[in-house]
Amino acid sequence: MTIDLARLMRPRSVAVIGASENPTRIGGRPVRYLLDAGFEGPIYPINPNYETVQGLKAYSSVTDLPEAVDMAIIALPAAPAMEAIRQCVARGVGGAVLFSADFAEAGAEGRERQDELSRMVREAGMALLGPNCLGAFNVAHRFYASFSAIFESGFPADGNVGIISQSGGFGSHLAKIALQRGVKIGQWLTTGNEAGVDVGQGIQWLAGQPDISIILAYAEGVHARDTLVEGLEVARQAGKPVLFMKSGSSAVGAAAAQTHTAAMSGSDMVFEGMLQQFGAVRMHSTEAMVDAAYLLQRAPRPRGNRVGLISISGAVGVQMADIAAQVGLEVPALPDEAQARLKAINPYAATRNPIDVTAQAFNNLDLVRDNLDVVLREDGLDALIAFFTVTAGSKSIAPRLSQILSPLPVQYPDKPMVLCIVADRDTVASYEAAGFAVFEDHTRAVTALGTLAHLFHRNIEPLPEQNFSRAAEALRRHDGTEFSAKIVLAAAGITVPKGGVATDSGRAVGVALEIGLPVVVKIHSAEILHKSDVGGVALNLTSPPDVARAASGMLERLGNAVLIERMAPPGAELILGFQHDAELGPTVMIGLGGVQAEIYRDAVCRLAPVSAAEAMRALQSLRGRKILEGFRGLPVADLEAAAKAIECLSQFFATHADEIDSLEINPLRVLGQGVIACDAVLLRR
Amino acid sequence: MTIDLARLMRPRSVAVIGASENPTRIGGRPVRYLLDAGFEGPIYPINPNYETVQGLKAYSSVTDLPEAVDMAIIALPAAPAMEAIRQCVARGVGGAVLFSADFAEAGAEGRERQDELSRMVREAGMALLGPNCLGAFNVAHRFYASFSAIFESGFPADGNVGIISQSGGFGSHLAKIALQRGVKIGQWLTTGNEAGVDVGQGIQWLAGQPDISIILAYAEGVHARDTLVEGLEVARQAGKPVLFMKSGSSAVGAAAAQTHTAAMSGSDMVFEGMLQQFGAVRMHSTEAMVDAAYLLQRAPRPRGNRVGLISISGAVGVQMADIAAQVGLEVPALPDEAQARLKAINPYAATRNPIDVTAQAFNNLDLVRDNLDVVLREDGLDALIAFFTVTAGSKSIAPRLSQILSPLPVQYPDKPMVLCIVADRDTVASYEAAGFAVFEDHTRAVTALGTLAHLFHRNIEPLPEQNFSRAAEALRRHDGTEFSAKIVLAAAGITVPKGGVATDSGRAVGVALEIGLPVVVKIHSAEILHKSDVGGVALNLTSPPDVARAASGMLERLGNAVLIERMAPPGAELILGFQHDAELGPTVMIGLGGVQAEIYRDAVCRLAPVSAAEAMRALQSLRGRKILEGFRGLPVADLEAAAKAIECLSQFFATHADEIDSLEINPLRVLGQGVIACDAVLLRR
Repeated sequence: MTIDLARLMRPRSVAVIGASENPTRIGGRPVRYLLDAGFEGPIYPINPNYETVQGLKAYSSVTDLPEAVDMAIIALPAAPAMEAIRQCVARGVGGAVLFSADFAEAGAEGRERQDELSRMVREAGMALLGPNCLGAFNVAHRFYASFSAIFESGFPADGNVGIISQSGGFGSHLAKIALQRGVKIGQWLTTGNEAGVDVGQGIQWLAGQPDISIILAYAEGVHARDTLVEGLEVARQAGKPVLFMKSGSSAVGAAAAQTHTAAMSGSDMVFEGMLQQFGAVRMHSTEAMVDAAYLLQRAPRPRGNRVGLISISGAVGVQMADIAAQVGLEVPALPDEAQARLKAINPYAATRNPIDVTAQAFNNLDLVRDNLDVVLREDGLDALIAFFTVTAGSKSIAPRLSQILSPLPVQYPDKPMVLCIVADRDTVASYEAAGFAVFEDHTRAVTALGTLAHLFHRNIEPLPEQNFSRAAEALRRHDGTEFSAKIVLAAAGITVPKGGVATDSGRAVGVALEIGLPVVVKIHSAEILHKSDVGGVALNLTSPPDVARAASGMLERLGNAVLIERMAPPGAELILGFQHDAELGPTVMIGLGGVQAEIYRDAVCRLAPVSAAEAMRALQSLRGRKILEGFRGLPVADLEAAAKAIECLSQFFATHADEIDSLEINPLRVLGQGVIACDAVLLRR
Repeated sequence: MTIDLARLMRPRSVAVIGASENPTRIGGRPVRYLLDAGFEGPIYPINPNYETVQGLKAYSSVTDLPEAVDMAIIALPAAPAMEAIRQCVARGVGGAVLFSADFAEAGAEGRERQDELSRMVREAGMALLGPNCLGAFNVAHRFYASFSAIFESGFPADGNVGIISQSGGFGSHLAKIALQRGVKIGQWLTTGNEAGVDVGQGIQWLAGQPDISIILAYAEGVHARDTLVEGLEVARQAGKPVLFMKSGSSAVGAAAAQTHTAAMSGSDMVFEGMLQQFGAVRMHSTEAMVDAAYLLQRAPRPRGNRVGLISISGAVGVQMADIAAQVGLEVPALPDEAQARLKAINPYAATRNPIDVTAQAFNNLDLVRDNLDVVLREDGLDALIAFFTVTAGSKSIAPRLSQILSPLPVQYPDKPMVLCIVADRDTVASYEAAGFAVFEDHTRAVTALGTLAHLFHRNIEPLPEQNFSRAAEALRRHDGTEFSAKIVLAAAGITVPKGGVATDSGRAVGVALEIGLPVVVKIHSAEILHKSDVGGVALNLTSPPDVARAASGMLERLGNAVLIERMAPPGAELILGFQHDAELGPTVMIGLGGVQAEIYRDAVCRLAPVSAAEAMRALQSLRGRKILEGFRGLPVADLEAAAKAIECLSQFFATHADEIDSLEINPLRVLGQGVIACDAVLLRR
C-alpha cells in the first residue's frame, strides 16, 4: 500500500501535542528544534495548562487550532496519545509522529491499543510514524519532529542521503555517526512499532524524493512483504541504491520442521535473498553502511568492479589486493604500456597493480598526479584507491598536493577516486574539496568500493504466461504421496521419472519391466516423509529378482504399496524448497543437494515467483557451483533447464500459495540436458 | 636462532652515519628526534663534510669515534652503507638500523649485496634491522632510530604494546592509527628485507621485555620457520598475546600440483594454522588489530567467552548479539533472579541478555550503575559491553556518570568492561580514567572482545616417543606404488586394508578369496597417481567373476599388475596431506574428504609434528564436523583414533622430512572404532 508522506514530511504547519516549556524534555525539544532551525510555517504548541510555550501561543487541543495542521508531533503517554490521535483524525491532520511507548511492545493491552491505532490511521489515510519512535526530520524543510539528542550540537547541512530506521535509538546513532563522517543527510524517518508507516513505505517515499538519491534502511523484521517489495522496486526503478542493515541473523529458528527446507532457510536468509533480488545491498555494521554512503555521496558509481590500487607501501598494496578479492573487486594487471609509463616516472615502482609508487613519489608532487593519471586513463579500470597515509596528510604537503590533484576528478568524472590519508579534519576537507573521497583506513576504503560494485542494478525480468490449470486440478486431488506430488509436478511441466505404483511384488516387477530397468523402489505412503531413514528406498535395482525382493521387503515392513521408478541418469543435484516465510510470504530456496546444503548451508533464497534469469543468478551465486560445471565425471549441468524449472515451480507455488503449504524437491537432478525431479514432498495447506 | 637486541634497542650511545644538518632529511630526522626526545647517551653524527651536525660534533667515520657505540643508524645509499656496516663490524658496534634500499628488493645485484650483508652481520653477531626498513623506537629509553613522519606531531607516551613489522610503511601507519586510538606503544621495530633480525626474532625480543605485554606483528611472508616458531613459543610461554596480521591471502598458488593437498593448502592456510597452534590470533585489518590492542591495554583478559550485553536500544542489543555469534562469543540468558533485579530497577527493561535498559535508565544515573552491577556480579558472565551512544556522551551527563560508574572496575577487576559512547575526546578520556574501555561503534567493540576470547592459551602438548625404524626401512624401499606406500604406513602403525598384488586375473581372484570379499581392485603402478580418473579403480566387488573381470580389464588397459584390497567398512572420510611449505617447512593438512575439502575448502593446516590433542582441536574446528558425528547412518567417527593417526604420521613425516616429498592419505576412513588408510600417495624426495 502506497501512502503519501508529503504532509507528514514537508508540512506547512505543525502542532506539538504535549508541548513543554522545558526545552530539554521530550515535549519541549521538538518545539525548540523547530524554532532554532527556523521552521517556516506556524508551530502550534498544544498544552491546556499554559498560555504560551517557549514564547509561542499555546492551544488546549488540536480541535481548537485555527487550521487543520499538516502534521502533529505527539509527546504524551499512551492513553492521552490515543485521544490526541482521535482528535487529529477528526480534524483532518495529515500526518503524525507518535513518540509514546506502551503499545505493542508492552503486552496484550498495548497490542490491543496499537491495533486500534492502526485501524484509526488506516481508515483516515493519516501518515503515522510510531508509536515508540523517535520521529523524523527534513533538513531542506527545516523540519525537526524529534527529541533525538543529535541536534544538541546543531542542525545538519542538507544532503542527498535518506535514512529510514525502525529503531529510533539506532536511527539516531546511525545519523550521528554518518554526520561525524561527513555524510550529508536530507531526510530521516523512524517508524518504531509501525502502526502506520513501515520501513517499506519509508523507502518508497525516499525513493520518490528528487533531492534524495541514496537510501539507508534499518529493520529488525518486516511484517508486510508488499510494502517492502514495492519500496525496493520503486527505489530500483529510480536508480537509487538502498543499503539495508537487518539484525537478527543469529536468531535460531528452532521450530521443528517437517522438511529440510524449513530448517535450513531462516527468515534471515530469505531477507538476504530478497535484497539481492531487488539490487539492494545487505549491510552488517554501522561503519560499513556509513562508509558506503560516504563514498556514494562523494564519487560516481563505478561502471564495473575493476580497481587500480596505488600505494606508497608495498605491504599495504598487498593488503588492499587481499581485501579486494574478499569483497568481489578485481585487481587486473596494468597493460605493459601503462606499466612502462609508471616505470618512466619511477624506475623503482612496482607497476603491475597493486602499484607501489614508493615514498619517492612524494619528492615531486607533480609526479604523484602523473602516477594517478596513468592509472585513471586506463579503460580497463573502473575506480582508483591510493594509499598515501600520513605522508599526504602532512601540513607541508597537503595544500599543494590537493591543488595539484584537483583536475583529475574533473578529467575522469566517471571514476570513483579514493585517497587513504591520515590527517586532521581540515586537511581531509581540502582533499574532499578537490573531488576525492577520503578514508583513513585502506581496509574500509576497499570494502566500501566493494559495496558500490555490488550495487549494479538487477533487471527484474517479466515472467512468462503459464497455464497451471492441469497442475491445479492435480493439486486438488493430491493425496500426500510422492507419486501424487509428481503427477502435480508433471502437470506443471516438470519432468519426473517414469513410474507406477504396485501393491505386490509381482506387479512391481511388471511395472519395472514396463518402464525399463534399472529402477528404484520406494515405499508409497503419505505418512512417511523421510523414506530413506526407515529403509523405504532401494536404488539401482537391475534385475527382476532384485525388484521383487525390494518390493516385498517394503510391503512387509512399511506399508501396502510401493512406487517403482526408472533410475534417473547421473547428474548434479539441487534441492529446491518452496515455503511460506512468516514475514515475507512465498519463497523459494535453491541449494546444492546432499551435504552441500545441509552441512555447508550452500543455499540461497528468493521471493517467489522468480524469473529464470534471476534463478540463474541465484544458481551462479552458490559457493559450490563448481559441482554443477562437470565435476568428477558428472555432465556439465543444464543450468538453463534448472532455472526454467525454478521459474515455473515458483510461479505455480506463488499462484497457488493459498493451497500449498510447502513443496520440496530433493533432489532435482540436473542432467547434461534437462532436469528431473527425483523426489518430491508436497504438503497442502 | 636467538639474537640479543639489547644494544640495538636500549643503546647507551648512538652513531648516525650519513647524518644531515637538515632536520627534515632522512639523515637529519633521527638526529633531531634523538635530540628532541632527550636521548640520554652520546649521539655521534657521522659526516666527513661537516664539523658539527645540528649542533653536535661530527665525525668522519665510525672508526674515528671515541668509543664503540652500542648502535648505529645508517642513512646512506647502498654501496657506502655496506662500507659503513663493514666499519661497524670492525669497530664492534652492537647493532644497526639500515634504511637504505637497493638490496634484495632490487634485482640480482642487490640480492648479492644483501647476501654479503647477511653474512657480515651474522658472523659478527650484530643485530641489524633492515635494509629497506624504517628503523625502531623505544619510548622509555627516549630512543628514536627512524625517519618516520609519525614523530612530527610529538613523541608518544610509554606503553606496554610492542610492534614488530616487516614493512616500514605499514609499521608507521599502524603505529599512527594506534596512537590516535589511544593505544600506548613502548617499542617499535621494522625489519624490512630482514638481512639480520626477522619478525620471529623481533617477537622473541618483545616477549622478553618486562615492560611489553602485548605484541602486534605484521608480515607478508616468513622465510625462517625456526625463529618464528621460537618467537611465538616464547611469547606463548610468557603469556603475552600476539596479534598477527599477515597479508597475501589472495595470492593464488597456481603451481601445478601432483596431489590435491598441494593445490588446496596454500602458504596462507599454513600460516593461519601455525598461529592457531601457538595461540596467536590472525588479524585482517589495521582497525581490528588496533581495537584489540586497545582493549587488551584497557581491560583484563576475559576468563571466558560469555558476555553480558546492555543497551539503551533494543535494536543495538540484537545487533550486538548477532556479531557476538559471528565472533564466537556466547550471550547466555541471565538467571531469573538477576532478571528480577533488573525488572525491579525498570519494569520496562528487556532482561534476558541482550539487556535493554531503555533510555529511561538515564533518568537516574545511579540506576545505570545498578544495572551494570547486576550483570557484573554474575559469575556466568566474563565481560560486559554497554551501548550508551550519545546519551552517555553528552556534556550534561558524562562527568557525573563516569564518577558514578568508577567503582565498578575496581570492584570487578577480572571483567573487561566496554562502554560504547559517541563523544568528544575529553569525555571519552573521563570514562577511560574511570577504568572503562570506550568504543564508538558497538560492532567493533564486540569484535575486539571476540578477539580477546580467542587468545586463551593453547597448551602445546609433548609428543610421545615413537620408534619409526621399521617405517624408515620401508620408506627406503618404497617403489612409488600405493601398495608400497601402505607398507610404510603399516610399519608406522597406521591400519591399512588387507591386500595383495597380482599380475593376472586368476591370482587376483586368489588374493580376493584369501583376504575375503568384497574387495577393491586397483591398478598397481607408480606412475598413475589419480587411478579413478583413468578407470583404474573398481569398488565393492562381491564375487570372483567380478574380481576377474575388473582385474583383466585393468591389466589389459593400464599396466601389468593390480592391487586387490578388502573393502573398508563404512565411515566418515578425512583427507590428510603432509607437505613441505616453502616458507614454513613440514606441515599437515587435515580436511574432510570428498567435495567437502575440495569445493568448500573445509580443511585446516598445522606445522608438523602436531600432538594428538592439537589434531583433535583441528578436527573439531572443521566447519562440517557434523559429518563426523554420525551423519546419515555413518557411525560416530572415532576422532581419538584419527587424532592419534595424525600425531603419528606427522611425527614420522617431520622426522623423515629429508626423505619424504609428500604424503597424502585420501581418504582416511574414520570408523566407529579405529581408522583405516584407504588410499595413499607417498612421494620420496
